[in-house]
Amino acid sequence: MKTSRTKEIEILIDLIAKLPGLGPRSARRAVLHLIRKKSTLFKPLSKQMAKVFEQARECLNCGNIGTSEMCEICEDQKRINGQICIVEDVSDLWAMERTSVYNGRYHVLGGTLSALDGIGPNELKIPKLMKRLDSEEVHEVILALNATLEGQTTAHYIAEQIENKVSVTSLARGVPMGGELDYLDEGTISAALNARGKI
Amino acid sequence: MKTSRTKEIEILIDLIAKLPGLGPRSARRAVLHLIRKKSTLFKPLSKQMAKVFEQARECLNCGNIGTSEMCEICEDQKRINGQICIVEDVSDLWAMERTSVYNGRYHVLGGTLSALDGIGPNELKIPKLMKRLDSEEVHEVILALNATLEGQTTAHYIAEQIENKVSVTSLARGVPMGGELDYLDEGTISAALNARGKI
Repeated sequence: MKTSRTKEIEILIDLIAKLPGLGPRSARRAVLHLIRKKSTLFKPLSKQMAKVFEQARECLNCGNIGTSEMCEICEDQKRINGQICIVEDVSDLWAMERTSVYNGRYHVLGGTLSALDGIGPNELKIPKLMKRLDSEEVHEVILALNATLEGQTTAHYIAEQIENKVSVTSLARGVPMGGELDYLDEGTISAALNARGKI
Repeated sequence: MKTSRTKEIEILIDLIAKLPGLGPRSARRAVLHLIRKKSTLFKPLSKQMAKVFEQARECLNCGNIGTSEMCEICEDQKRINGQICIVEDVSDLWAMERTSVYNGRYHVLGGTLSALDGIGPNELKIPKLMKRLDSEEVHEVILALNATLEGQTTAHYIAEQIENKVSVTSLARGVPMGGELDYLDEGTISAALNARGKI
């Protein structure tokens, strides 16, 4: 393609277009926006990228992302020991944290079991979880995996492996906040009915 | 907000969320994606950002963005002199270039006239355009401003200023490729009818 953009800007656009949710068009807009806001946005963003690129790493204990060997949650003395919440991904951990309700520890699996993609327990952080159950005094494991087929398959596998060692719970199924019955699937309504409680 | 993300990652997410078309949620996804693809995406993107941040600058002649005092188009010896295409913004210049049809020079105004926002001719690169018309041997100015109220007001203003010096043309109005008459506004259809030509 004949282009008037210099090569360096072209390369930057192509790289930004690889971010999830962005395409060539929005990448172009983003780059122009950056160049227009050179001192207020481009400069701090460029510096922060370099910083996070240097520092970001996976927590050796739980798989969360942080800037040191152990993440802030694992190092936090105020958090309750003995409770481990298992999530598929760091984004799920962040979603749990946004509720400000949970105050225990986490374990990030890094995905779900998938025979098709050749992802077995050893490809996920399941062996590491087993080690943690042996070394830490854990009394409850909360399975907070996505309510998808893959998430639930993985949850059942983990539950089978550990339910003789520790109490295993999982997030409740039910009608989500603001949910309208007419728009909900039968599975959700059945689950909510079965798990009904007193008001 | 209580958070498990380290401060540095938090700052990066906030900065990325300021890009057009991105919000907090997509910024979080982008950062996680970057950290997961550390060597294949994060590293080159971080480096390229620093590079473009250092190098990107406005062309002193036409207002295009490049990496040197004069942009690639102004320096290109193969391009036709004497034709200047006037666009509102660098993104419009890029759009024109994608057609690979135009082979002359450009002049980027940097916006449109707006009495409300206090943007007069001196806030745009109109004085610079006048200078170029005096110093370069220009025989045609093509007004490629957006077909919006602001774009057309600006186009008329510029045409008035220069039509005694140089031939002024503007992009044709008509039915866009793939356009269905039923979905087009009356203004477009009238313009297309008035400018009708032999098949």
